Amino acid sequence: MSSGWHFLQIPGPSNVPERVRRAISEPVIDHRGEEFAQLGRDVIAGLKRVLKTDHTIALYPASGTGGWEAALANTLAPGDSVLLCENGYFATLWGDLAERHRLKVKRIAGDWRSAPDPEQVQAALAKDTSRLLKAVLVTHNETSTGALADVKSIREAIDDAHHSALLLVDAISSLGSTEYEHDGWGVDVTISASQKGLMLPPGLAFTAMSPRAIDTSTNGGSPRSYWDWAPMIAANETGSFPYTPATNLLYGLREALRMLDEEGLEHVFSRHRRHAAATLSAVEHWQLEVACTDVSARSPVLTGVLVPPGHDANDVRRAALDLNMSLGAGLGQLAGKAFRVGHLGYFNDLMLLGVVSGIELALSRSGVPHNPGGADAALRHLESH
Amino acid sequence: MSSGWHFLQIPGPSNVPERVRRAISEPVIDHRGEEFAQLGRDVIAGLKRVLKTDHTIALYPASGTGGWEAALANTLAPGDSVLLCENGYFATLWGDLAERHRLKVKRIAGDWRSAPDPEQVQAALAKDTSRLLKAVLVTHNETSTGALADVKSIREAIDDAHHSALLLVDAISSLGSTEYEHDGWGVDVTISASQKGLMLPPGLAFTAMSPRAIDTSTNGGSPRSYWDWAPMIAANETGSFPYTPATNLLYGLREALRMLDEEGLEHVFSRHRRHAAATLSAVEHWQLEVACTDVSARSPVLTGVLVPPGHDANDVRRAALDLNMSLGAGLGQLAGKAFRVGHLGYFNDLMLLGVVSGIELALSRSGVPHNPGGADAALRHLESH
Amino acid sequence: MSSGWHFLQIPGPSNVPERVRRAISEPVIDHRGEEFAQLGRDVIAGLKRVLKTDHTIALYPASGTGGWEAALANTLAPGDSVLLCENGYFATLWGDLAERHRLKVKRIAGDWRSAPDPEQVQAALAKDTSRLLKAVLVTHNETSTGALADVKSIREAIDDAHHSALLLVDAISSLGSTEYEHDGWGVDVTISASQKGLMLPPGLAFTAMSPRAIDTSTNGGSPRSYWDWAPMIAANETGSFPYTPATNLLYGLREALRMLDEEGLEHVFSRHRRHAAATLSAVEHWQLEVACTDVSARSPVLTGVLVPPGHDANDVRRAALDLNMSLGAGLGQLAGKAFRVGHLGYFNDLMLLGVVSGIELALSRSGVPHNPGGADAALRHLESH
Amino acid sequence: MSSGWHFLQIPGPSNVPERVRRAISEPVIDHRGEEFAQLGRDVIAGLKRVLKTDHTIALYPASGTGGWEAALANTLAPGDSVLLCENGYFATLWGDLAERHRLKVKRIAGDWRSAPDPEQVQAALAKDTSRLLKAVLVTHNETSTGALADVKSIREAIDDAHHSALLLVDAISSLGSTEYEHDGWGVDVTISASQKGLMLPPGLAFTAMSPRAIDTSTNGGSPRSYWDWAPMIAANETGSFPYTPATNLLYGLREALRMLDEEGLEHVFSRHRRHAAATLSAVEHWQLEVACTDVSARSPVLTGVLVPPGHDANDVRRAALDLNMSLGAGLGQLAGKAFRVGHLGYFNDLMLLGVVSGIELALSRSGVPHNPGGADAALRHLESH
Repeated sequence: MSSGWHFLQIPGPSNVPERVRRAISEPVIDHRGEEFAQLGRDVIAGLKRVLKTDHTIALYPASGTGGWEAALANTLAPGDSVLLCENGYFATLWGDLAERHRLKVKRIAGDWRSAPDPEQVQAALAKDTSRLLKAVLVTHNETSTGALADVKSIREAIDDAHHSALLLVDAISSLGSTEYEHDGWGVDVTISASQKGLMLPPGLAFTAMSPRAIDTSTNGGSPRSYWDWAPMIAANETGSFPYTPATNLLYGLREALRMLDEEGLEHVFSRHRRHAAATLSAVEHWQLEVACTDVSARSPVLTGVLVPPGHDANDVRRAALDLNMSLGAGLGQLAGKAFRVGHLGYFNDLMLLGVVSGIELALSRSGVPHNPGGADAALRHLESH
Repeated sequence: MSSGWHFLQIPGPSNVPERVRRAISEPVIDHRGEEFAQLGRDVIAGLKRVLKTDHTIALYPASGTGGWEAALANTLAPGDSVLLCENGYFATLWGDLAERHRLKVKRIAGDWRSAPDPEQVQAALAKDTSRLLKAVLVTHNETSTGALADVKSIREAIDDAHHSALLLVDAISSLGSTEYEHDGWGVDVTISASQKGLMLPPGLAFTAMSPRAIDTSTNGGSPRSYWDWAPMIAANETGSFPYTPATNLLYGLREALRMLDEEGLEHVFSRHRRHAAATLSAVEHWQLEVACTDVSARSPVLTGVLVPPGHDANDVRRAALDLNMSLGAGLGQLAGKAFRVGHLGYFNDLMLLGVVSGIELALSRSGVPHNPGGADAALRHLESH
Repeated sequence: MSSGWHFLQIPGPSNVPERVRRAISEPVIDHRGEEFAQLGRDVIAGLKRVLKTDHTIALYPASGTGGWEAALANTLAPGDSVLLCENGYFATLWGDLAERHRLKVKRIAGDWRSAPDPEQVQAALAKDTSRLLKAVLVTHNETSTGALADVKSIREAIDDAHHSALLLVDAISSLGSTEYEHDGWGVDVTISASQKGLMLPPGLAFTAMSPRAIDTSTNGGSPRSYWDWAPMIAANETGSFPYTPATNLLYGLREALRMLDEEGLEHVFSRHRRHAAATLSAVEHWQLEVACTDVSARSPVLTGVLVPPGHDANDVRRAALDLNMSLGAGLGQLAGKAFRVGHLGYFNDLMLLGVVSGIELALSRSGVPHNPGGADAALRHLESH
Repeated sequence: MSSGWHFLQIPGPSNVPERVRRAISEPVIDHRGEEFAQLGRDVIAGLKRVLKTDHTIALYPASGTGGWEAALANTLAPGDSVLLCENGYFATLWGDLAERHRLKVKRIAGDWRSAPDPEQVQAALAKDTSRLLKAVLVTHNETSTGALADVKSIREAIDDAHHSALLLVDAISSLGSTEYEHDGWGVDVTISASQKGLMLPPGLAFTAMSPRAIDTSTNGGSPRSYWDWAPMIAANETGSFPYTPATNLLYGLREALRMLDEEGLEHVFSRHRRHAAATLSAVEHWQLEVACTDVSARSPVLTGVLVPPGHDANDVRRAALDLNMSLGAGLGQLAGKAFRVGHLGYFNDLMLLGVVSGIELALSRSGVPHNPGGADAALRHLESH
């Protein structure tokens, strides 16, 4: 048996605050009663504040993958074409899901070490003179690489191309951890989920929808029922749901939204930036390579770290696990080559310093060559910022 | 503020044991680690014991409605016809969902006061000489009426008609509360969910599949991804899931399965039968009408109670809520005419006697005419059984 | 394994609300920090409201027995005489404790079936012409018998005797469940504890002190340290304690005090009276004897019930335990002859009806002769009150 | 609102594991029932294993101060003399408590920066030719200074002086964190409490007693009741207590004892030694002074750190609190001059590195001069040990 706290730094699910876990363990209530309706209205209003939208949202008992499916099922019909910015493992999975729903997926292949390029999006749309592309699919924060897309610029690229494609954005691992503006950035459908910046266990997915997305849905989309927006929006107006909601996760969501309100979103975001920068100081000091090569696109949510050729990143993860810390594995192309460290959610300076120190111990114990002193460099960063 | 325990007797979500709620509030773990894999294998094995199946299951972060969709999407293609036993509100909703997925639904209309008639099923199948019907959809325990279908006889009816239709059974509110045998009764797809006899909050749905259902799925079905059985079955073999699972609800599921094991399923079932009989004694003593007129089909899970014409069943529910008890509303055709009382899940004699006594108080306070002494009749029943 | 809630009706510890138990499971904080100081001030202020005193209190990590000792050690010196109203098991224990501290105990023996008689107190004091008696010890609610003393009249009896004895009152099982006025009734030292009307687990005891009690303590009392009021009062002024406090029980106390505030003490008291009356209806209908023969002194906190000669009250308790209910044993003289049922604390109509119904089942199963229908009588009482 | 975990490093109460806090929030049970008796027997047996004694113990709802009082009240009578090793703040408080109980306290004054000197004890006893000294009072781990007494050598000193004084040892902050042998070291009374190495909230105190201590108690001691060993020992034999026990803290104790068993006491102790050594590396690197000047007596439980003259240690504590870490204040003579950091209880490498890093940040922010790199030195220590 190991002693002390476990540091859950796979970049999501993030460490769920005890306060939120207590909330999800409250007794279940009648989901058709007034007490529940108040809960429903509270969480919908709170999510809209975090998403920065005045429009509608739909909230599902589902994982984020369900959110992807909901976005596609409501806005696209079998045979429709979509443009996918394929910048990492999760973007790739989303594209696969789209194909299984008989959508045609045109991919802008990325190197999995940078964010999508708005110019490439604009170029691809410009070439689509017959307007076959019905949607652009972008992953805001690619959790497999730690690269953050510039969603606003992608919106501008679509507009500059005078193209009618809807903008669908996966904000699963970014929402609540870094700036996001559903309305302000002109996103048509945002997909997100509970287990990252919202500091909840997995099990809730949701979409935010622009009026144009709703229109598209009303008149089209694929056959659907569970994911259908229309009954969801109608029910949500009174705080209810078209089928049994995941009541206890909603308790947790209400509590997590309160916590974000108490700290203030701006403070939350600057905390994430500061911890990402401190982590970067450590990685650079260790003379290890950061997965995301595009300096300006480095994510405040997580940092992907490459181990030198000839070494196995999973050895570092095993050594970390012995120290009571879970690091994220390299996924897809990066399997064995990278580990990922989350610095998102319910987190503070001492936790970050424990984490970075623990990684330095794990590097040492797993025989990965590195320049000692990275944890000290992170400390120096926090000291001076 | 009201004092004391709240009696949650809407017939599901049922009262979640504190032990289960504590389990769901444990810290999240890495869903790609070995500790999680053990959890995954444990809950899959446990569900198979409760379902009495040696075949495969698929477990989703979803509500029961998602389970309905999963069953249909894997086994039926748009344009296929299905035979629906429409014996209540939830059966009707399932049929609507099927139509939204572009299935043709042939209905055997019920009176919402009894269970499906196997003979009618056999007759309908016999008439389907061109074998257009691909599946028979049956709700085992119709939660809106308190009528329990004889699934085994329906299987025999299909067999007697020498028809190839798959048998799809909604066991959402029956599983864990009354006898159910996925393999033994020849069910092709069983759909169930967490929040009834399994004593969990809502948020998990699952299906059990016969080899024939799996075959049908492999070669057909509708476009699907979230609900697709193939990757689910593949992942489950190692205790993992194809996308982020609802970890904390799985903790609760493991604990609830342990509790069912400790009490013993046979004991659980006989407890439910005994409490249903005691409740019936009360209702009959009150000279109120039981929603389910078919005496042999009365459910051990819940009892629907009709109020006399000219009275509003929701007045009884409001009076009960003042007493710190939630009763289920009449649904659909029964709205305002019936209330429903659950006697399922984590429950015992004293709770039942408190509930029946509370209903008697609520009847009195809401001015619903009744013969006093029903709670005493329930006590006499328990005394002598 | 038994299913469903356990009904804890030993009359104290009473059923602790989950809300309070959650509070006591919060992380420990620095007991020398400002956050703790606020907690300390909150609970002291809240206890003073419940005790109806504007004077000082002292709050100990201890059981109620420690509170008895604190009261004696601060106000009495070895060799002092006290007058004890010995009306039950707990009063007797208090007297024994006094003797172990070398106090001389003059007893007014009771029959253990009624409350202390103020006239006897007055007569005893009148005879004490040399004023040797330094204190009168009264148990407000004798938990072993269910008899409630008239503290106000005993104060008047002391005054009428023009005697200087301090009035020391054990309000352990009455505080928070029935009217109590430390200042208004002229009590010098009130002793109470956490596990009865305050709805907490055991582990906290406290005393409220009149200015005269404090004076007596300042100039006298027995050698003492842990129980000494002076450093406690000094520390409490800033919300701190002279030694490490039981932080987590204090969290629970704060929460329980909030709950009493939310319901309103008057409402709490009338709820207890109503439930005591309903219980009495049941006992009388069963044609069993109530332990407390003095009708006007019957306690709103608990009811003692005698079984007929030749029967063992512990058989009833064992049958109740099989039904998932703990009843209190007969204590001392009443061992085997009586069982006790608490109707205090976090409780409501449905719980009471479950409890009374359960007792009727237990009487039946243990072969104790009784007139059936007591639970129904309790229901009728609640229906009409 | 601050984000992330709070690091509670006042050296006790230590950080209580969530597992233990969950245990203490379980529903209360009948303390006179068999389920409780099993709990009582379990915790008594478990405490005896940790104390390494085959003799009796007494377990009180009380803080550690109550344990001091229990030890004295059972073995010493007013007017008796005791020899006190006064090596810090808590030893001094114990002496004051003894005097309030009218014991004569002969003090061996320490410099509050080292452990008691067995030779001085032997010399003092040798001078006591008329054998007036009835007990030697030693604080095993002085929590105010971080010095660990050599109890075994003090026992030998008493034996070498052929003196009959009982050996009374305060093991409040050492038990469960470092080697301790009640029987093996010949201790007569060990006093300990719940909130340090046992990883519980405060509220439980206990004593272990040698047969000679019991004999002394049987025939003497001071007037007592709450603290009296005789009824405690008698009741404990059946797992019960002479008055209402603090049931929920006992739940926590059972769970904490299980955790110590699972990790293994030897492993727990070596973990503490390792973390103390790593902390020492940091302090020495910072070129700050360790409170305990006697290198061989430095405590594995906590480290006291002096700030240079002209600086206020409480400024460091305030800066730490802003970082979500509570450090212990300097007490008594060391107020404002020292801060204390606990590395006891439920703790691991990453927590220690977070703590040491946080102290380095706090030193920097509070302007206390120090050589940067202490956290890195601690990391190096852990890397190589």
